[in-house]
Amino acid sequence: MKKILAINSGSSSFKFKLFSLPNEKLVAKGMADRVGLPGASFKIVLPDSNENIEHREIPDQEAAVNLLIRDLKKYHVVEDLNEIAGVGHRVVSGGEIFKDSTVVDQEVLQKIKDLSNFAPLHNPAEARGIEAFMHVLPKVPQVAVFDTSFHQTLDPVHYLYSIPYDYYKEYGARKYGAHGTSVHYVTLEAAKMMKKDLKDLKLITCHLGSGSSITAVKNGKSYDTSMGFSPLSGITMGTRSGDIDPSLLQHLMHETGISMDEMINILNKKSGLLGISGISSDMRDLKYNKNPRAVLARKIFLNRIVRYIGAYIAEMGGVDGIVLTAGVGEGDVGMRQAIMDAFKYMGVKPDYEANKANGQKFITKPNSSIQFMVIPTNEELMIARDVMRLTKCAALA
Amino acid sequence: MKKILAINSGSSSFKFKLFSLPNEKLVAKGMADRVGLPGASFKIVLPDSNENIEHREIPDQEAAVNLLIRDLKKYHVVEDLNEIAGVGHRVVSGGEIFKDSTVVDQEVLQKIKDLSNFAPLHNPAEARGIEAFMHVLPKVPQVAVFDTSFHQTLDPVHYLYSIPYDYYKEYGARKYGAHGTSVHYVTLEAAKMMKKDLKDLKLITCHLGSGSSITAVKNGKSYDTSMGFSPLSGITMGTRSGDIDPSLLQHLMHETGISMDEMINILNKKSGLLGISGISSDMRDLKYNKNPRAVLARKIFLNRIVRYIGAYIAEMGGVDGIVLTAGVGEGDVGMRQAIMDAFKYMGVKPDYEANKANGQKFITKPNSSIQFMVIPTNEELMIARDVMRLTKCAALA
Repeated sequence: MKKILAINSGSSSFKFKLFSLPNEKLVAKGMADRVGLPGASFKIVLPDSNENIEHREIPDQEAAVNLLIRDLKKYHVVEDLNEIAGVGHRVVSGGEIFKDSTVVDQEVLQKIKDLSNFAPLHNPAEARGIEAFMHVLPKVPQVAVFDTSFHQTLDPVHYLYSIPYDYYKEYGARKYGAHGTSVHYVTLEAAKMMKKDLKDLKLITCHLGSGSSITAVKNGKSYDTSMGFSPLSGITMGTRSGDIDPSLLQHLMHETGISMDEMINILNKKSGLLGISGISSDMRDLKYNKNPRAVLARKIFLNRIVRYIGAYIAEMGGVDGIVLTAGVGEGDVGMRQAIMDAFKYMGVKPDYEANKANGQKFITKPNSSIQFMVIPTNEELMIARDVMRLTKCAALA
Repeated sequence: MKKILAINSGSSSFKFKLFSLPNEKLVAKGMADRVGLPGASFKIVLPDSNENIEHREIPDQEAAVNLLIRDLKKYHVVEDLNEIAGVGHRVVSGGEIFKDSTVVDQEVLQKIKDLSNFAPLHNPAEARGIEAFMHVLPKVPQVAVFDTSFHQTLDPVHYLYSIPYDYYKEYGARKYGAHGTSVHYVTLEAAKMMKKDLKDLKLITCHLGSGSSITAVKNGKSYDTSMGFSPLSGITMGTRSGDIDPSLLQHLMHETGISMDEMINILNKKSGLLGISGISSDMRDLKYNKNPRAVLARKIFLNRIVRYIGAYIAEMGGVDGIVLTAGVGEGDVGMRQAIMDAFKYMGVKPDYEANKANGQKFITKPNSSIQFMVIPTNEELMIARDVMRLTKCAALA
């Protein structure tokens, strides 16, 4: 049976999942960490087996890819490299160039690198990851799957900022959004659960993880999304500020003497739940914490979600279903209940019993005016599906 | 009959309106312009008379105030200076200090100056205006009426940004809002029109002028508002950008080499409708313009209004009435219709006939789920009322 790798590369790491297709079964997962650094590690986890952690010297990404291939053979996950029909790579920014996932050749690779000024922490690392796999597996198609592609359906009314128009033409100043692969996956699942054609639905997805975004999906297409030019804006996140008045940054820079780059770094890494609470960026640490600033951080997080859901209901002229996904969406019973309760005024009927347990399900009653769903996201599976679609390996399975 | 002056001072100008109280009749208005500059002018307009424009040498604000007093006597608007029971001054920023309007003494004057880093273009000029009136009319109470006071009822959940909490404590980093005097006035009028107690109403006001903001007013108190630390954020305005991803500013600064101060200046003066359209910051110039970018600017303006109204409906858990005011709200029939149409999905029933003409009125049908109202704003009258309230001159009338 053919298998597909889904890869999420960082600057000195990559996470992987291996799926067999077309049955979409996860057959292995794991990660390489601290590649090229002291204390490097490579981990592979097989279904129904214990974890294997091995610390080793891993000089570079290619060495890490070779370890992966060696272990896949060693544990008999893959008997022959020909079974690997393709490798899909998450790429954060596809700018306006990539409106869909694409098979990577040298030209595509160069374009991914060229888009680095839109995602300076991500695209260069992801390009290096792709190159490592190209070198180790030269005959296997590499596919780039962009976080931004799904949002390329936005209308200029939603993606343009109210700034001099030339900034859009000359410097690509517009909303690109993120989490597109996750949003696409959960809306496909939502339509299945609702037994409707996605083309007939108005949905809002709440991807609530350490990075969080709200997306309006109208008739199967991304209609508006809370992240903007970068993944910094929108709602409150673990360490990211979300929306903020630019004049406030000017004020703080004048008062403290810090530079714009330092300011943006603070907004990315020391803000959000961490900045408000002073305790943690992780909602699991704040959930039962009675400290007033922990409580405040949760209330602000909730408020920004409600604010964006309300905005997108108005933009679409209604909503049929609202999906909660990613770490907080999949695991925070109290937050889910608070979000549903905020929309009781519209005729939402929460099913508190159903909501008490996690897992893919409806958490509103059948007579609710809006159906709320918990849907665990699976970006890697979506990446694998895109590889299958673009390499037509399904026919080879 | 006692009279009250309402003053709006700029850096080299002031506008004035004189009301007789308690009947709230406007008895004179006008402005001093280019004070201390070549081509200075002073204008006074009396009801039922033609305009008087006189260009003169006006060396400073005190000289302008003396011209005002001279003309009020000359045209027999005021026979005796004792008739002027008080002077109310619009002040843009009251920070967290001024939760209500206040009679100005030296201590208050100093605090207004101290708040200049929150409104560098406004507070210093307004303080100079107050001082000029204090010198010319030393026995007349001067009252400061702050644009921000009405929004001091916001909960921290709504006024805090998701940034390190110390920035709030140390540098006053929070949402202050603006247009509070206008919002307060139109919500009082809306309650009268709806024949309800303001305390029982959920209202949303759309102050749509060259500066624009949306405010949620719940039970008579400001609940949330679209302007933030400064009047730059929120919806698209004439020349101001409204909300924007801070990372985009960093990107543009890197690409163009401009400084943060230049960037903020561009966001304040070259953005908004002007920036998108490349044609004009004035909606009256864009209204019938078929140029695609003029059309786009109008669509974006509309979208941001709908977005905020939707957000505030969700935050308040419903809305009873929506008020349209200021230049665009009072005069743009097409924009008003488009805003109402966007909420038909909630059961809004526009009264297109009523909407065709301007003036204070309902523009939805009686069976509409939300009542839309046009209410011409009158910040100066609200200022005069505050002077009356705080100086108790009503008893003297």
